[in-house]
Amino acid sequence: MKIGTVIGSVWATRKAGCLMGQTFLVVRAGEEELVAADQVGAGRGDRVLLVTGTVASRFCMESPVDAAVVAILDQEEHHVCP
Amino acid sequence: MKIGTVIGSVWATRKAGCLMGQTFLVVRAGEEELVAADQVGAGRGDRVLLVTGTVASRFCMESPVDAAVVAILDQEEHHVCP
Amino acid sequence: MKIGTVIGSVWATRKAGCLMGQTFLVVRAGEEELVAADQVGAGRGDRVLLVTGTVASRFCMESPVDAAVVAILDQEEHHVCP
Amino acid sequence: MKIGTVIGSVWATRKAGCLMGQTFLVVRAGEEELVAADQVGAGRGDRVLLVTGTVASRFCMESPVDAAVVAILDQEEHHVCP
Amino acid sequence: MKIGTVIGSVWATRKAGCLMGQTFLVVRAGEEELVAADQVGAGRGDRVLLVTGTVASRFCMESPVDAAVVAILDQEEHHVCP
Repeated sequence: MKIGTVIGSVWATRKAGCLMGQTFLVVRAGEEELVAADQVGAGRGDRVLLVTGTVASRFCMESPVDAAVVAILDQEEHHVCP
Repeated sequence: MKIGTVIGSVWATRKAGCLMGQTFLVVRAGEEELVAADQVGAGRGDRVLLVTGTVASRFCMESPVDAAVVAILDQEEHHVCP
Repeated sequence: MKIGTVIGSVWATRKAGCLMGQTFLVVRAGEEELVAADQVGAGRGDRVLLVTGTVASRFCMESPVDAAVVAILDQEEHHVCP
Repeated sequence: MKIGTVIGSVWATRKAGCLMGQTFLVVRAGEEELVAADQVGAGRGDRVLLVTGTVASRFCMESPVDAAVVAILDQEEHHVCP
Repeated sequence: MKIGTVIGSVWATRKAGCLMGQTFLVVRAGEEELVAADQVGAGRGDRVLLVTGTVASRFCMESPVDAAVVAILDQEEHHVCP
């Protein structure tokens, strides 16, 4: 999984039918910017956990997405190795 | 998913049979240039949503592609974090 | 698989239900920082083996994660090729 | 999918049995050099379409490869966005 | 697939049970260093073919690995495009 920050949203009326009902957030994770289906009600500025790849679709009632926001982080503790 | 811009197309007469009937768009997403099967009738210059990996094949009547254009974006709202 | 070093942990109370019961470690592998479900009781500073992608979920009683810590390394022997 | 150019081949007599009967091409796609199972009779210098990841194995009678050359391009039309 | 050179090994006594019986090689492929389950008896210095991702587990009697050494190369022929 990756840690990221929600920085926005995207909207599309012309889209594949199997994406209906999903909310898409723009998430920055390190240098990368991804669009992920929101599974936890995250909002702009939230620090979140992202699942990417095929397994992401299992969070979304099998909607065929390749990235999902699956948790809002309460606490992070990471140290750069000496 | 990734946000990209449609910048062209590719054509191939010599191809694996299971790719018949797919339209292939060239999409630029950040620094990367990908070929994706079009599922929404996108054209050059459109801002689109790309699904990549195995899950992309589920948009394409199980045609074995690894990237699909699955939405044309109406609106994008993303802000660089302060 | 990748070799990494455990550098911390993350906690989330608001998360997808299917992630309950997993412990999430922050692991640095080369230039990359990942969050992985711990399957072996690893702690900060441990050198570990990481499995990434869909196959990681098979270590976690099918919990849909995309990265898992699956071994703590006793010994590493690698040489830069001349 | 990726667009690449066939730049060579590799041969191996000591290999996993399930790879028997596959021809392996070396393909350069952007900065990356990959080995892919040839499904279309491509030769050195051909511009080709590459499928990567699990879905590539579906082109190869389920031979477990992670990259396949699935088309030889007749025409490419892509423009750098202004 | 990727071409790499075996540069070492790793050992772990504390590991997920489903990894028992696998030998893990450290392989350098371009700029990247990976750990892969050996399926062909490769040794240090050998030039090998690496399969990565979910499909790698199909070489390993379904052991859930994400990288496998599946061939030892006899011959490589690749040319930089003019």
